[in-house]
Amino acid sequence: MRISELSQASGVPVPTIKYYLREGLLPPGERRAPNQATYGDFHVHRLRLIRVLIEVGGLDIAAVRSVLQAIEREDLSLHTVLGVAHHALGPSSAQGPVNAEVARAYEEVQGFLAELGWHVSPQAPARWMLADALAALRRLGWDTDVGAFFPYADAADKLAALELSRLPADRGRGELVEQAVVGTAVFEAALIALRRLAQEHHSASRWAGEAAHVSLEGTSTSQATQRG
Amino acid sequence: MRISELSQASGVPVPTIKYYLREGLLPPGERRAPNQATYGDFHVHRLRLIRVLIEVGGLDIAAVRSVLQAIEREDLSLHTVLGVAHHALGPSSAQGPVNAEVARAYEEVQGFLAELGWHVSPQAPARWMLADALAALRRLGWDTDVGAFFPYADAADKLAALELSRLPADRGRGELVEQAVVGTAVFEAALIALRRLAQEHHSASRWAGEAAHVSLEGTSTSQATQRG
Repeated sequence: MRISELSQASGVPVPTIKYYLREGLLPPGERRAPNQATYGDFHVHRLRLIRVLIEVGGLDIAAVRSVLQAIEREDLSLHTVLGVAHHALGPSSAQGPVNAEVARAYEEVQGFLAELGWHVSPQAPARWMLADALAALRRLGWDTDVGAFFPYADAADKLAALELSRLPADRGRGELVEQAVVGTAVFEAALIALRRLAQEHHSASRWAGEAAHVSLEGTSTSQATQRG
Repeated sequence: MRISELSQASGVPVPTIKYYLREGLLPPGERRAPNQATYGDFHVHRLRLIRVLIEVGGLDIAAVRSVLQAIEREDLSLHTVLGVAHHALGPSSAQGPVNAEVARAYEEVQGFLAELGWHVSPQAPARWMLADALAALRRLGWDTDVGAFFPYADAADKLAALELSRLPADRGRGELVEQAVVGTAVFEAALIALRRLAQEHHSASRWAGEAAHVSLEGTSTSQATQRG
């Protein structure tokens, strides 16, 4: 198909497709004439994958590129590709300075993970995310212990076990890798959304006497049938 | 204290403090002389709160402003302020077009939440996050049913119940509101981090024979004692 048809099939505008081609996110089409390339189903699927990683996973172009490169490298294990996806997903949070508070929280996180018995890379950025979270609470005067993370670790452990067990064993590496990466990004967004909804539900229950359906004055709200 | 001392106490550089003052995130200090204002403990705490919302919560300046304004408005219920915080946290994801696929997924999400019996605002942006997630999976060829969200909803429900029960009942509104908002943002980051670590752990267990501690070639890695 031509680039205009590729645009129609994928829902991605032609200029954006050209940008992804220039950035190497999308492999070039087959040249039929000097000024014409044809594209196939692979390109449609790849475009959809890029859009999901950007729109749902929140990745930027550089992060999408590193994930796609990892997916394509046959010599990388699925475990490694998942690690690349975790890197790409963040943390945007691990950007503060490593001061004494954060360093102390980091040591506690190390002990916490050892206690859980989890096998995770010493380089995993998520370790710093946890340390930052703990240090942040203390900076605000909370006397939070690293043990406050246990219920979250327990929930995460159960979900991860379920997710891994859901991956089909009978697929080729390419499909498996893509499923693992997409699942990581998309279900992370779903989990965040559900946690906020659950908080709202419990908050409505606890502060009884208030309407559960408040309108959020001073913020942009969306209609039920149309985004804000 | 002077602005230089405020900077030292909070760890926030003077130009950044001036920026927050201009943007109205930080109330002005008390004027002692035409060119000199003094600041108190409130300012130190406020600066720390701003930094946590930005660095851990990932909020931009406009979102921080809306959260701080909501915290300060005594006429808003805690439930409403939490809603504002949820708005401010995102979704950055609900930005795609509402096409037929997303609209259908949205209807299914409505049914799903009704089945859960959760009381959540029809305007909650998290509804769209879920619809986007579901539509994204289908665009990539997954035959995912909205029921795939149940284990996540279950985990979120338990965590939200725990979080609300942890909020101290004997504090003033200001402190309670701040705790609720900070807890939402910070434990969200912690949950995301723990889910990634749990995935890594289970992925290492499943793909046995591979080293659990892989180095992520082609991506920036951080040392164990120093960020990348």
